[in-house]
Amino acid sequence: MVKRIGVLTSGGDAPGMNAAIRAVTRVALNSGIEVFGIYDGYKGMVEGYIEPLTKASVGEIIDRGGTILGSARLPEFKDIEVRNKAVQQLKKRGIEAIVVIGGDGSYRGALALTEMGINCIGLPGTIDNDITCTDFTIGFDTALTTIVEAVDKLRDTSSSHHRCSIVEVMGNRCGDLAIWSGIACGAEIVITSSTGFEEGEVLERLRDFDLIKKKRHAIVVISEKITDVHQFAKKVSLNTGFSGRATVLGHVQRGGSPTPTDRVLASRMGEKAVDLLMQGVGGQCVSIKDNQIVSVPIEEALNMPRESRKRLQNLFDRLV
Amino acid sequence: MVKRIGVLTSGGDAPGMNAAIRAVTRVALNSGIEVFGIYDGYKGMVEGYIEPLTKASVGEIIDRGGTILGSARLPEFKDIEVRNKAVQQLKKRGIEAIVVIGGDGSYRGALALTEMGINCIGLPGTIDNDITCTDFTIGFDTALTTIVEAVDKLRDTSSSHHRCSIVEVMGNRCGDLAIWSGIACGAEIVITSSTGFEEGEVLERLRDFDLIKKKRHAIVVISEKITDVHQFAKKVSLNTGFSGRATVLGHVQRGGSPTPTDRVLASRMGEKAVDLLMQGVGGQCVSIKDNQIVSVPIEEALNMPRESRKRLQNLFDRLV
Amino acid sequence: MVKRIGVLTSGGDAPGMNAAIRAVTRVALNSGIEVFGIYDGYKGMVEGYIEPLTKASVGEIIDRGGTILGSARLPEFKDIEVRNKAVQQLKKRGIEAIVVIGGDGSYRGALALTEMGINCIGLPGTIDNDITCTDFTIGFDTALTTIVEAVDKLRDTSSSHHRCSIVEVMGNRCGDLAIWSGIACGAEIVITSSTGFEEGEVLERLRDFDLIKKKRHAIVVISEKITDVHQFAKKVSLNTGFSGRATVLGHVQRGGSPTPTDRVLASRMGEKAVDLLMQGVGGQCVSIKDNQIVSVPIEEALNMPRESRKRLQNLFDRLV
Amino acid sequence: MVKRIGVLTSGGDAPGMNAAIRAVTRVALNSGIEVFGIYDGYKGMVEGYIEPLTKASVGEIIDRGGTILGSARLPEFKDIEVRNKAVQQLKKRGIEAIVVIGGDGSYRGALALTEMGINCIGLPGTIDNDITCTDFTIGFDTALTTIVEAVDKLRDTSSSHHRCSIVEVMGNRCGDLAIWSGIACGAEIVITSSTGFEEGEVLERLRDFDLIKKKRHAIVVISEKITDVHQFAKKVSLNTGFSGRATVLGHVQRGGSPTPTDRVLASRMGEKAVDLLMQGVGGQCVSIKDNQIVSVPIEEALNMPRESRKRLQNLFDRLV
Repeated sequence: MVKRIGVLTSGGDAPGMNAAIRAVTRVALNSGIEVFGIYDGYKGMVEGYIEPLTKASVGEIIDRGGTILGSARLPEFKDIEVRNKAVQQLKKRGIEAIVVIGGDGSYRGALALTEMGINCIGLPGTIDNDITCTDFTIGFDTALTTIVEAVDKLRDTSSSHHRCSIVEVMGNRCGDLAIWSGIACGAEIVITSSTGFEEGEVLERLRDFDLIKKKRHAIVVISEKITDVHQFAKKVSLNTGFSGRATVLGHVQRGGSPTPTDRVLASRMGEKAVDLLMQGVGGQCVSIKDNQIVSVPIEEALNMPRESRKRLQNLFDRLV
Repeated sequence: MVKRIGVLTSGGDAPGMNAAIRAVTRVALNSGIEVFGIYDGYKGMVEGYIEPLTKASVGEIIDRGGTILGSARLPEFKDIEVRNKAVQQLKKRGIEAIVVIGGDGSYRGALALTEMGINCIGLPGTIDNDITCTDFTIGFDTALTTIVEAVDKLRDTSSSHHRCSIVEVMGNRCGDLAIWSGIACGAEIVITSSTGFEEGEVLERLRDFDLIKKKRHAIVVISEKITDVHQFAKKVSLNTGFSGRATVLGHVQRGGSPTPTDRVLASRMGEKAVDLLMQGVGGQCVSIKDNQIVSVPIEEALNMPRESRKRLQNLFDRLV
Repeated sequence: MVKRIGVLTSGGDAPGMNAAIRAVTRVALNSGIEVFGIYDGYKGMVEGYIEPLTKASVGEIIDRGGTILGSARLPEFKDIEVRNKAVQQLKKRGIEAIVVIGGDGSYRGALALTEMGINCIGLPGTIDNDITCTDFTIGFDTALTTIVEAVDKLRDTSSSHHRCSIVEVMGNRCGDLAIWSGIACGAEIVITSSTGFEEGEVLERLRDFDLIKKKRHAIVVISEKITDVHQFAKKVSLNTGFSGRATVLGHVQRGGSPTPTDRVLASRMGEKAVDLLMQGVGGQCVSIKDNQIVSVPIEEALNMPRESRKRLQNLFDRLV
Repeated sequence: MVKRIGVLTSGGDAPGMNAAIRAVTRVALNSGIEVFGIYDGYKGMVEGYIEPLTKASVGEIIDRGGTILGSARLPEFKDIEVRNKAVQQLKKRGIEAIVVIGGDGSYRGALALTEMGINCIGLPGTIDNDITCTDFTIGFDTALTTIVEAVDKLRDTSSSHHRCSIVEVMGNRCGDLAIWSGIACGAEIVITSSTGFEEGEVLERLRDFDLIKKKRHAIVVISEKITDVHQFAKKVSLNTGFSGRATVLGHVQRGGSPTPTDRVLASRMGEKAVDLLMQGVGGQCVSIKDNQIVSVPIEEALNMPRESRKRLQNLFDRLV
């Protein structure tokens, strides 16, 4: 059985990564497996920035955002020589298997390493919820909470000024942060890559909210990279009765203490990763699917078609 | 098809009830159905405290705790004459069907009314997560969040004083608030009706955390009605190296702005309830099961055996 | 003695305005004075959008952001004919005096009205703390809290990525939000109109934090309208070891439930305003100066030179 | 001039103590003075649990509750032999002066040490605001915020059930937490050691709120150690139309991330303490008085009569 494993975080950080690191470390140690923290993602693996983790070193981190292991991007990791160097660093320390916490870019590295004899298990750590094989990623619930708290604040002030607040949220490939927060905030309009964006039609609907539905304010939630929200806010001011104001929430969405839901999800997924490694499994990623913690071959996960979010968009429309 | 429905909240209130009221109201109105708010639960039904709801009257409530409809207990509702009076009040206003948001006590009333010709659909609104047929109740996630925020605060101060904080949380029949918050807070010990409570054994484990594991503090999460936590705290001070302090979180757990997760869950369930009534269905309750919104006959729901939470308790043990 | 007073909010809204409205209303009613709410600021005064306030109508608002009275800008209020119309609206209803809650622009209107025989008292409601005659404005503490919570979140994620977060906060004439939040967040650099902005020098200091002081991340807090923070972030990435990211907090800063400090300040100031009107005083504004609630002639307040914030900037420098 | 100073926290911990430790450390280091952390208060001083602090060791603590130095009570410190041992520990390390952060009990130790040749400066770190010579203590604003957030949650659920929530808050000698939170929450009744507690009269007022003023709920804020709130809640249920529920907030009030106000106050006070030690001053404690940071001889501070809080109680009465 596996004796020594490593854990790293890779790609953009997400709240709950620390809870996952803690779970991997504690579950492994409680099963008699030694654990090493690999710092700054694959970069630290290649450079040998690797240190043992104890129960105490993952104490007091479950409530902290970010990742105590740091993260960095290393595009060169797709080169076999670079990966060879990484494998040597691991072998030198007797590390036989790795838990990789990150987005699907990180999964490719995990797959490549597995093919080189180092069993890797991927955990979905990203706020965007853009990993197709899992219903929820670690960090999504916290980012959603941050967005909703911000929009709750905007609503107060928007009502006082007959204002239309246009709120840009993260998630360009996957509109889940937009549609979930749109429902949770009682937004008037949600725009994602799935809904598409017809400027004229949106302005028309805003005029309707103002003139016919007599709303005191309007909230528009929009995914990033769809339009220039500041320009759009000006058009709202010119073409509707609302005064338009854009807010780009930005990196604040990545931070903050993880919600209980994210902490528990991360803990459950970390446990599963260690169990898989103990069974000698590699090249898989952990998911929550229909409220069960399961695993899927990474190869399959990367090629899974994105599910439609029509049902939630339909719900949104019925709630306005 | 149904033309007029009512909605009420019953039993202890739970954050997210307003989001459910809003969803029921908006989805129904958008489907051409009139909606009436029944105030103070079955009591208001009997007394005719019933008023029409509009889209505007459920605006600006999605982020508010409690229930705008109020709630009250009415044990007499099990008497047929009392229910007859209620049915007359409904008939007088042409209300043909009802959505009942509350705990399983409220479901009994809903079933009885259905048998009298008023189709009722139950929604699980209770913080305790003690309704067996659903994975999650409306309000559970918010109560969990309130608990975890409180324990995060206690951890700061406990570490500063080598203290053992004993935190009593709600949920006497169902220990979910305790076990989930125990995992999410990184507690040292969780005590629920499932784990049982052996005082001597718990004190022994606390001594171990102090002397062997060298913890600077210990958090014990315990479900209500298991022991007198203030007395137990004194024993901790006498019998371990920690200074014991008890905190009973109490009704604070019922309040607060609902989390996004609860708001979305409530919205999805409210939609489902209206859809069922539109199909002429009654006597059912809405659940989320394996991440799908489904419905179950109330009779079946009330007799479902409680699922074991062994898996989560097992996870908890592996994380300490 | 005065029998009927009005209250309005004007200019940008600020958290705590509702607490001030409540205090004015309740203190006046408890003194036997009738109170009228004037909606949408001076605009509503001119148009006669004026309604009586009761104790109940200001219940349950002390914890809400924004202003239940709404706010709007009316530049035409400087025209005497427009003000004449406003005075007629007031006289028609027997309203003899007004409490104006807003920024110093609103104070000018209050002064002009006082000169026309309607005693007005100004309350400083603005998040920027840019009213010279008072140590603190209503809303400042809440906006500060919102900023600090956001930067606390950014710190997590900045540390994980060796990032420099540049955070633009409100307050162009007065840098208090920047300097207070800089101290409270443990920022590395604060830039306000008082400190000036030498781009090259700031980049040099950032290189120093990276290379010499070995900081894992850097936080730069900057007042609005000083530079294009997105462009500046790019320069940080190009010229220092940090990856630069800009966040413009925007209108979120205006919203949110007021802090206890703002609620109490607003209550104390509202009480003072009513007491002044009861003494037949007008043309004054209420301040907190050296922790005492006092009043100052508006004319004097508008011409007061801005105090230097050197002491706090000096403290900031000693804390880095 | 002083070359080496120590810093310790003593008594009950308070949010903002870490910000004070950081300020003392950074300001001293930036002035060329070495700083030592003394762990677990006077106990660590006697036992020699003393370690150097660097700028980095106080990094990332400004937002954390509790105290990184720990705290403990040591009644024996009033014995001269115990203090002699402490002085030896300090002299051995060349520590010439100390900043003591804590309540007035801690100040006595600071005074005694000063008389033995170790200049000590006290900083008021306690949530109760019970140090007479200062308008505000470090931690008061955060505890107040925690209370108000809890009561805001209780208000939701109280309104839903026509309930009277009785909330016990900390502060037995000084009722500031009660009166400030009472104003900030819009409570119906506040009971402190200054107001006195006439049970019958309070019940009478509650009946009045129910029957005459038609309140949907009532909030009673009461200082600790005045009555058994659980017994009192039962009497409320029996003698008024409200259903009474007691909540004892307990140690949660001591914890949590400090508010910006507390962080800035702690930073300003920490700076002052170092400045005083640099001037060779000892036996004084730092205060904020009329918004100025000043210092007062500890002897004088300990004998200062408690100020009446009549003005705030009077304001409270006018707001109901």
